[in-house]
Amino acid sequence: MTWHSARSTRPGRSARVPELRRDPVSGRWVCLAPGRAARPETPHGREMRRFQAPGFECPFCPGHEAMTPPEVEAVRGPGGKPDGPGWSVRVVPNLFPAFTAEGAEARLDDPMHQVVPALGTSEVIIHSPDHRRWLPYLPAEQASLVMVTTWRRYLSNAVPHMATVVPLYNHGPGAGASLDHPHGQLFAASQPGPELEIETAGAKRAFRDVKGCVFCHMVAVEEAAGVRVITSDEQFVAIAPWASRGPFECWIIPRDHRADFGLVSEPGAGELGGFLRAVLWRIARELDDPDLNWYIHSLPHAGGEDAVAYHWHLEIRPRVAEIAGFE
Amino acid sequence: MTWHSARSTRPGRSARVPELRRDPVSGRWVCLAPGRAARPETPHGREMRRFQAPGFECPFCPGHEAMTPPEVEAVRGPGGKPDGPGWSVRVVPNLFPAFTAEGAEARLDDPMHQVVPALGTSEVIIHSPDHRRWLPYLPAEQASLVMVTTWRRYLSNAVPHMATVVPLYNHGPGAGASLDHPHGQLFAASQPGPELEIETAGAKRAFRDVKGCVFCHMVAVEEAAGVRVITSDEQFVAIAPWASRGPFECWIIPRDHRADFGLVSEPGAGELGGFLRAVLWRIARELDDPDLNWYIHSLPHAGGEDAVAYHWHLEIRPRVAEIAGFE
Repeated sequence: MTWHSARSTRPGRSARVPELRRDPVSGRWVCLAPGRAARPETPHGREMRRFQAPGFECPFCPGHEAMTPPEVEAVRGPGGKPDGPGWSVRVVPNLFPAFTAEGAEARLDDPMHQVVPALGTSEVIIHSPDHRRWLPYLPAEQASLVMVTTWRRYLSNAVPHMATVVPLYNHGPGAGASLDHPHGQLFAASQPGPELEIETAGAKRAFRDVKGCVFCHMVAVEEAAGVRVITSDEQFVAIAPWASRGPFECWIIPRDHRADFGLVSEPGAGELGGFLRAVLWRIARELDDPDLNWYIHSLPHAGGEDAVAYHWHLEIRPRVAEIAGFE
Repeated sequence: MTWHSARSTRPGRSARVPELRRDPVSGRWVCLAPGRAARPETPHGREMRRFQAPGFECPFCPGHEAMTPPEVEAVRGPGGKPDGPGWSVRVVPNLFPAFTAEGAEARLDDPMHQVVPALGTSEVIIHSPDHRRWLPYLPAEQASLVMVTTWRRYLSNAVPHMATVVPLYNHGPGAGASLDHPHGQLFAASQPGPELEIETAGAKRAFRDVKGCVFCHMVAVEEAAGVRVITSDEQFVAIAPWASRGPFECWIIPRDHRADFGLVSEPGAGELGGFLRAVLWRIARELDDPDLNWYIHSLPHAGGEDAVAYHWHLEIRPRVAEIAGFE
């Protein structure tokens, strides 16, 4: 499943809530989220630039809490009130959701125009009150707090009927961010994305080839070779993958084998935040703070062969080259 | 198969020719073309702008023919000499190829680091001597000539051991173009890309659902409904696909059922050029000349079920929104 904001003016079915449409050729489900077209204007193409003019009222800054929907969770000191200032990490529903609790009517009788509701949740995780500093430039304790909060939201959203829960981060306008203030996102959806399906099937096939978890095997092989390891500590290894899909791609693989990020402990999530901060700091320094995306790949509710063969991890993809037509 | 230019400075195997590496997890083959990192600098992220400064010596302009490798084909008047001026369309090998006739050594014994040569061809089709005008702003006859030349190069490259031949066009830096002067590209590769594999498998499955070619069916259904047809003539229909993967996606579907673009006649290729020009003109006018990509999806050597179920077509994907993390 892929999705996009339908900024379309073309005539036809006009959905007010996100919906999944099935491409009758490929069979691919595509999420159309028309509401997302109303997002703060994202620059594109030749007009790309830092996009929020001075004086823009940032809805994610302290004191502007009323500009967002009511918070679903926040980290704040004792005495602080919900939707007031004083928070250090704040989670709100995405005002422009790709997935929602209620959806469009399903229509499957017409094979050329099948549609089902895009059921799920879309949340925004505001990383800190600081409008200007993103993860690598926040204090280590704050980076840990961000990841613990992300992990808590993952757990809250990984209810049985959700096939996928994806925490992710878009850094910079070239990576799809539509607001400057550093914020992660979390999507939960009732259908898995194509990437996770390919990866899960691949991991099960590779399990037979290497007679074990291919991610555990990769950590062992690459640490022994010493060529593709970017950095590591007792819990995590950052690897430049052999067949990376773009320049400077990096995978953070936990040493402990678990298919489900939700099975990490709270301290383990905090350690991931600190490790991620250090890796992003190196990328920002060496590549002059490139736009990038990171996402956590994880299988909620994994059991059986999936639990043995899959291994949650975090992928970082810097946007240092434009994706051309054949890519 | 996906590919990218390995602008990487990371240590490890350093390929001088393009190679396909297999991701041990997903099983995906990725083309790494290190030479492409030497291309004229492509702007990215926040520095995006018109990128060739005044005074830049364009290798695709008339009089600069010596700046490219010797031409493989050109349209020029009588008396003109190869690699001299006087041409109206000119085809040269890509100086920074993604696929080449000779490749790296295959190495399949190590399951975590498999690599095979990226065999194929990479050509550049210079659309006209005019540095400033791209297809919609060229005369209709020139647009026809461009597509006839593209079709001729498709035929020349569609030799039996090539599984895929893809003519494409990147318009603007946001779409991956690295030179201003309007030029198409043509890639032939010994392995099909994942997109074509998904589409071919999907078309065969859909053939059973709709009891015929799904593309022919789509043309009939959408013309009857009258909602998703952008424009049409006797030969072609331009459709806004039901499950488009981005805003303003457009498919140009020929009315005649053929799996292989190479089976089109020379006049038919010329008519496609004129039709494409008209569609691109509308997109350029209505969306303020957005960056975009177009590609021809076609199955060379299609036989049996493939020939019946698949239907060549041209896809246009405007880049009017940045692709965000989950997309």
